[in-house]
Amino acid sequence: MTRIIEALEWRYATKAFDSNKKLSNNQVAELKKITQLSASSFGLQPYKVIIINNQDLKDKLKPASYAQAQISDASHLFLFCAMKEFTKNDVNDFVDLSVEITGTPKEKMKFYHDMMDMKIDSMSKEENMYWASKQAYIALGNLLTGAAALEIDTCPIEGFIPQQYIDILGLDKMGLEPLVLAAVGFRADNDKYQHIPKVRKKNNNLFIEM
Amino acid sequence: MTRIIEALEWRYATKAFDSNKKLSNNQVAELKKITQLSASSFGLQPYKVIIINNQDLKDKLKPASYAQAQISDASHLFLFCAMKEFTKNDVNDFVDLSVEITGTPKEKMKFYHDMMDMKIDSMSKEENMYWASKQAYIALGNLLTGAAALEIDTCPIEGFIPQQYIDILGLDKMGLEPLVLAAVGFRADNDKYQHIPKVRKKNNNLFIEM
Repeated sequence: MTRIIEALEWRYATKAFDSNKKLSNNQVAELKKITQLSASSFGLQPYKVIIINNQDLKDKLKPASYAQAQISDASHLFLFCAMKEFTKNDVNDFVDLSVEITGTPKEKMKFYHDMMDMKIDSMSKEENMYWASKQAYIALGNLLTGAAALEIDTCPIEGFIPQQYIDILGLDKMGLEPLVLAAVGFRADNDKYQHIPKVRKKNNNLFIEM
Repeated sequence: MTRIIEALEWRYATKAFDSNKKLSNNQVAELKKITQLSASSFGLQPYKVIIINNQDLKDKLKPASYAQAQISDASHLFLFCAMKEFTKNDVNDFVDLSVEITGTPKEKMKFYHDMMDMKIDSMSKEENMYWASKQAYIALGNLLTGAAALEIDTCPIEGFIPQQYIDILGLDKMGLEPLVLAAVGFRADNDKYQHIPKVRKKNNNLFIEM
């Protein structure tokens, strides 16, 4: 069994975090790097990640999250938000960033630039949100796995009231729609869920080989 | 820098696969395990993963994928498909599987079972598909990262014609909708893209710390 599979076996959706154990600055930086390195459609990363460390804010979000203890007890929350309108300006920013990082002349990116503009133009507002959300979920998967490889616990949470999050965090004026969050920190010794065997579809019900 | 971050820096969306290098049976088994261990909403994994190894089939899928060379040259394709209708029967199967794996009596799972049934009932057909897709993208993110940790190359591909995939693979009678695939194998030595610096949003444009 390889190290990465051991890490995935070790991880579980942590229900009880030890609220005294906090991520170090170095660990937060590593988790940011992992998130940042995620793959996305054209590399456009049409989302933002809000990292919440402030205890007052976590306490305010808890009732907006069906009172789940992870919200206030986890060290940090990584909240993935779709950019509600991803525009040609955003595509252009990405092309400029590519020019800066890779040294490719902007003229040489024209075909790629046009293709991305076409993709953005072809989507309705709803399709845009769907597309952005899927990309954010790749990053979520990456964060959960990367954290496990660093022996950091996580719990992905979709169970919250979006409008309350929007109001508490002021997401409207940032043009963001909250999608899903990962509570991140360290499991409490007495979290009984860490001892329950993982339930996953059996191979013959998950995979079809052709 | 930690091992997992090195792996993520090493990975890139492989454009040219070495068609002579094939995954071993052991590597395929590891990638299946990684995919299987992915987190999902309630643990329900509302998707299937079609693993395509057959060269004739890969060659047939290539024109349905805008002639991208990865489709025919990669060792394997992992095609993530949403279950078009995720029903109370599927929830019940999951509960039975949980009973089998964890030894929890079924009666004790009633609250959780009812909650999942309510969730399934509350969704329109479109919402169901959106929900299933997001879960599949978590697994995709997990596969890309897990493969990199094993020094296996991948390229996530959304660029294909769904109806043609449905026809070629007979997905309709399986109740599956193709979402996204990962081409998996080993990079060609001469794939120039492996040397291009990775373009990712800078921290101040991706993260908001609160």
